[in-house]
Amino acid sequence: MTGVFDHPWLSGLFADTEIAALWSAEAQLAHMLTFEAAWSRHGHLAGLWSEADGASAASAIEGVPLAPEELRDGTAQDGVCVPVLVRLLKERTGAPAIHKGATSQDVIDTATVLSLVQSLDLIDQRLAQLASDLNALEDRFGTSPLMGRTRMQAAMPITVADRVQTWRLPLDTHRERLAQLRPRVALVQIGGAAGDRAALGADADAVCDAVAGELGLSATPQCWHAMRDGMAEAASVLSLVTGTLGKMGQDICLMAQQGIDEIKMEGGGGSSAMPHKQNPVLAELLVTLARYNAVQLSGVHQAMVHEQERSGAAWALEWMLLPQMVQATGRALVVASDVTSQITSIGTPDLLS
Amino acid sequence: MTGVFDHPWLSGLFADTEIAALWSAEAQLAHMLTFEAAWSRHGHLAGLWSEADGASAASAIEGVPLAPEELRDGTAQDGVCVPVLVRLLKERTGAPAIHKGATSQDVIDTATVLSLVQSLDLIDQRLAQLASDLNALEDRFGTSPLMGRTRMQAAMPITVADRVQTWRLPLDTHRERLAQLRPRVALVQIGGAAGDRAALGADADAVCDAVAGELGLSATPQCWHAMRDGMAEAASVLSLVTGTLGKMGQDICLMAQQGIDEIKMEGGGGSSAMPHKQNPVLAELLVTLARYNAVQLSGVHQAMVHEQERSGAAWALEWMLLPQMVQATGRALVVASDVTSQITSIGTPDLLS
Amino acid sequence: MTGVFDHPWLSGLFADTEIAALWSAEAQLAHMLTFEAAWSRHGHLAGLWSEADGASAASAIEGVPLAPEELRDGTAQDGVCVPVLVRLLKERTGAPAIHKGATSQDVIDTATVLSLVQSLDLIDQRLAQLASDLNALEDRFGTSPLMGRTRMQAAMPITVADRVQTWRLPLDTHRERLAQLRPRVALVQIGGAAGDRAALGADADAVCDAVAGELGLSATPQCWHAMRDGMAEAASVLSLVTGTLGKMGQDICLMAQQGIDEIKMEGGGGSSAMPHKQNPVLAELLVTLARYNAVQLSGVHQAMVHEQERSGAAWALEWMLLPQMVQATGRALVVASDVTSQITSIGTPDLLS
Amino acid sequence: MTGVFDHPWLSGLFADTEIAALWSAEAQLAHMLTFEAAWSRHGHLAGLWSEADGASAASAIEGVPLAPEELRDGTAQDGVCVPVLVRLLKERTGAPAIHKGATSQDVIDTATVLSLVQSLDLIDQRLAQLASDLNALEDRFGTSPLMGRTRMQAAMPITVADRVQTWRLPLDTHRERLAQLRPRVALVQIGGAAGDRAALGADADAVCDAVAGELGLSATPQCWHAMRDGMAEAASVLSLVTGTLGKMGQDICLMAQQGIDEIKMEGGGGSSAMPHKQNPVLAELLVTLARYNAVQLSGVHQAMVHEQERSGAAWALEWMLLPQMVQATGRALVVASDVTSQITSIGTPDLLS
Repeated sequence: MTGVFDHPWLSGLFADTEIAALWSAEAQLAHMLTFEAAWSRHGHLAGLWSEADGASAASAIEGVPLAPEELRDGTAQDGVCVPVLVRLLKERTGAPAIHKGATSQDVIDTATVLSLVQSLDLIDQRLAQLASDLNALEDRFGTSPLMGRTRMQAAMPITVADRVQTWRLPLDTHRERLAQLRPRVALVQIGGAAGDRAALGADADAVCDAVAGELGLSATPQCWHAMRDGMAEAASVLSLVTGTLGKMGQDICLMAQQGIDEIKMEGGGGSSAMPHKQNPVLAELLVTLARYNAVQLSGVHQAMVHEQERSGAAWALEWMLLPQMVQATGRALVVASDVTSQITSIGTPDLLS
Repeated sequence: MTGVFDHPWLSGLFADTEIAALWSAEAQLAHMLTFEAAWSRHGHLAGLWSEADGASAASAIEGVPLAPEELRDGTAQDGVCVPVLVRLLKERTGAPAIHKGATSQDVIDTATVLSLVQSLDLIDQRLAQLASDLNALEDRFGTSPLMGRTRMQAAMPITVADRVQTWRLPLDTHRERLAQLRPRVALVQIGGAAGDRAALGADADAVCDAVAGELGLSATPQCWHAMRDGMAEAASVLSLVTGTLGKMGQDICLMAQQGIDEIKMEGGGGSSAMPHKQNPVLAELLVTLARYNAVQLSGVHQAMVHEQERSGAAWALEWMLLPQMVQATGRALVVASDVTSQITSIGTPDLLS
Repeated sequence: MTGVFDHPWLSGLFADTEIAALWSAEAQLAHMLTFEAAWSRHGHLAGLWSEADGASAASAIEGVPLAPEELRDGTAQDGVCVPVLVRLLKERTGAPAIHKGATSQDVIDTATVLSLVQSLDLIDQRLAQLASDLNALEDRFGTSPLMGRTRMQAAMPITVADRVQTWRLPLDTHRERLAQLRPRVALVQIGGAAGDRAALGADADAVCDAVAGELGLSATPQCWHAMRDGMAEAASVLSLVTGTLGKMGQDICLMAQQGIDEIKMEGGGGSSAMPHKQNPVLAELLVTLARYNAVQLSGVHQAMVHEQERSGAAWALEWMLLPQMVQATGRALVVASDVTSQITSIGTPDLLS
Repeated sequence: MTGVFDHPWLSGLFADTEIAALWSAEAQLAHMLTFEAAWSRHGHLAGLWSEADGASAASAIEGVPLAPEELRDGTAQDGVCVPVLVRLLKERTGAPAIHKGATSQDVIDTATVLSLVQSLDLIDQRLAQLASDLNALEDRFGTSPLMGRTRMQAAMPITVADRVQTWRLPLDTHRERLAQLRPRVALVQIGGAAGDRAALGADADAVCDAVAGELGLSATPQCWHAMRDGMAEAASVLSLVTGTLGKMGQDICLMAQQGIDEIKMEGGGGSSAMPHKQNPVLAELLVTLARYNAVQLSGVHQAMVHEQERSGAAWALEWMLLPQMVQATGRALVVASDVTSQITSIGTPDLLS
């Protein structure tokens, strides 16, 4: 229980329940079963089994009782959960029309993509919401004067709108980035043992299209087992989002200083030693999450050096980093909206008097 | 449940149960209570309360029923768990001689140090164990010839001992580093509200010494709220350890390639698509964990830019990173010993024939 | 002379002369003068000076003799080169219609953008060239068998085309990313003292459009002094490019191992100790440059936490990182094409016999 | 000319002339010649050549005319400068008793160590100087009141000494770290072709001791070609130093804000747009350099995953990062002392009135 996103009390600060649900072990397992069911259902297109056997296996997979913990020992043994998953599926369904022609990476990457795409959609909605929240803030206080500060020194008076726009305008750009990114990551992973779809023969495209269609994803002419640019680009966009929010958080912390007094907020954090304090806890958290993602991003890009047809080492590094980055991003967006709603006043009305 | 160390099935690959226990929420809570009890017990030295009241409060704290989850909402509100912890302690014990003169950072940092020091001790033992394991490997196979490879090209024949020593020798150096690091991190944190121990007056040293002594730590003349070099140095040493093990893992992966065949191992991971494969899963994991720590390290060093008397933003970044690095390091050491025990043969006996 | 890109001998390995020329001090100075001339020429649109005075100043700026070294002492004093630049321009031209209403960040960011956009165009051309080179490699050797390798273990036979496509296909995707990125970075920077274009009054858009048009850039409704997402996105795409090339380099190093022998190359590096060796120096360099960019990327994203209207600290961090990333990317693309041309044979023709 | 440390004008802000001299190409070349001369002089101890031939070659090497640029083409070809260096040495001296039994890594790593050790000594002196400067500051202003600030909020009054100590105390700890680090990096590199000193036979220790002694370094029982923990530890300590200075810089930037007014400084940077401003350029630079090193550190730790007897890829990554980190650290120390000397007043004398 050391991860801040899942921690009994730190989760109060760090967890984003909606995003957490999208990446829960239960959700990941469900996505893997969704892939396996689709695979069973459409494998007949490549002659892997009869249509009837595939349909029967698919139905059985969809109803199979399976707890996440049951995959633990197999993962410890094989380094991936799919061998034990497939064995349990076969044992419990008695259906033979399962997994043949696919491989671990197909199952896990596709499941990851499903969680990722749902997360990106949620992030997009939250970006829109936050832009709207900040727009409302500008409507209320935008014309209020504020000392413009460059290099941490008072420069020239500006308006509240000038500063708030540096928080809001990039949000629309991030939405544009997400829209452009989506077709590059909303991709089913199908490669089979060595990534060449050999088991599917001439009918590979038909299987890939059918499975992708069922999952709401697109198919690619080749598998992307060893081409991780989509994943690394997704991580980059996540870090761009938190970078903007970190700048907003840093600004708010600076504005909230006694002696600066450019912002008034309610609902700040208390201190165990100084009951009079109102700590800008959530604004600070935006800085933390921005720096966290900027750090993790480096690792996801390191993981692009993915040797040959599949790298266990680089792939596992992605597992360690990407879901955390999504959680940090989701949480930062919620926090940014919460912070915005805590602002009761912004600007320095008497600056020019 | 997105963190690999706590995940229902990925924990099979990533979790280190001993280290996990040292960093569990229960252990962290117990450490915080240990600090608070010691504080209550010795606060009379600075006139915070009477010796009897302090002793009574300490006993009550040690027996207080408290579940980690009870700290969640307070953490969400205050950004730290200590205000709610103190409130609950006071409510449940009825004792007033609690926490006065201390602050959140004193409690949390000291608790972190306690987990960290225990972890470093365990890491030290494991380094010794792994060095011994590798020594035994050298005893068995050290004189066997092996092709020396530089820049990934065959260079000149060497011996197995030559290569294994590049894995083993740094382990002793890491133990030396740990011994030198220890007095710089095994430090109680006591600063109070603004870090100057103002509430303790002229008797601050007496309180600090007594509390430190009870916890098996040392006291420093000043608090280190805003001096995070000890934490960042600890993180550095953790990454040095995993760096060495990552090199070992990378070498083993390369030696295990078909066509190279410099090592034989048992117990490799299976594949869902290719039952004939024996994947060097644990050796790959060593590479993953090394790269993971090298990434996280950057963040712990970023967190040294800790503004004024206490930075919420930088401090929370440490929380996100340091426990993960300890877990990764602990796991890597277990894995390295496991990998070593899986080796049934190493070298190329007929290389020179 | 410690930077590898400019080093008397390491530049032999690391330097990309075309990119280096785009980022040379001379080129940067020329870009800054281009901005200042355009500013002088169009400032009359906001009544900063008369059209004639502006035109005269612009001409004088374009012909002013100025050596990069002359900006050194001023930069040491002010932290930016623009105050001394403006002073020298005024002294040497005698023209008063200079710089008024603009600020350091306008000049330097616009100059950076000009170098960056030229670099991205060159990178795009090289991506196309490399894709073509790899296509030709596939045409020659694509149908040759090759052992598919997953988790560094022999899996199932594939073809050379299967592996080369993992190097080539992302190149087209990177070109798509560059095309989408371009309008988000090919932007003039115009904000003035505190970023609100106050000195331009109601005619700000006219000035911005005219200056941008002259420089071949677009204008934005607000300045982006403190919104660095475009820069961080550019850095992300650079690292995506080198990530793909690093994977290619890693694969080639692995294929070139004695015992694996999947590739034959000419022109490898020699050894001072072992004249028989042919080191895959350039393939290794691709790995180095990928990991380098993955590291630097973290810093460019950290620099997004850019406080208030302008952060000297975060901005200077960009200066330290972004030009290096462009150089590393440019060099990696040249190296990848060079490596491709060194390949005389790829695949294992007798694998299936 | 893109590196900030060598740039015609940015060097005014970033360059440290003393450190730059230690890492110049000329100094590196001189160190390589020093190694080669010592190697020639002592090689007779392992029977590589006669004592007279070795002495003669050593003298010739010490007087050989050689310009750094002459190594460029050879480096481009071989990936390292040593093959061309050795060829030129043999051609120009006519002496045969050169380099035999050594390899590129012996020459380059030893030269790097010589620059590094000199740098660490200089850094140690500067740490002592800065500690003394800050001590003097405390003597002048230490008892002055200052608002203690936690989580960027006013907490309780402290003294100037309380804050300045968070800048000064870690400096002594860093000196302790440097002293402990020194014997782990002040090591000659001698391994020969495949790292096992095979060419030196039973007399390897005698040669290593003699060469090390001449260079003022220690010898190790084995070469450390593939054990990079010393380098990574050195990088870690460099980043610890800049981390402390970054915290100092951040604090000063915060103290210098209008409205906070806790510090008065002279000699701040000017603005091209706002002549009234005094920008805390050097304090900001401390933050920049801290974040820079925290980023680079990740890469040096990544480079510990150094495959087999020598990794070209990982080694070259070190070349790209470590000299830059040393420069950043050296510069930060000079800047920190300069900033300290610019302080004319610190504290808020009327805080408690």
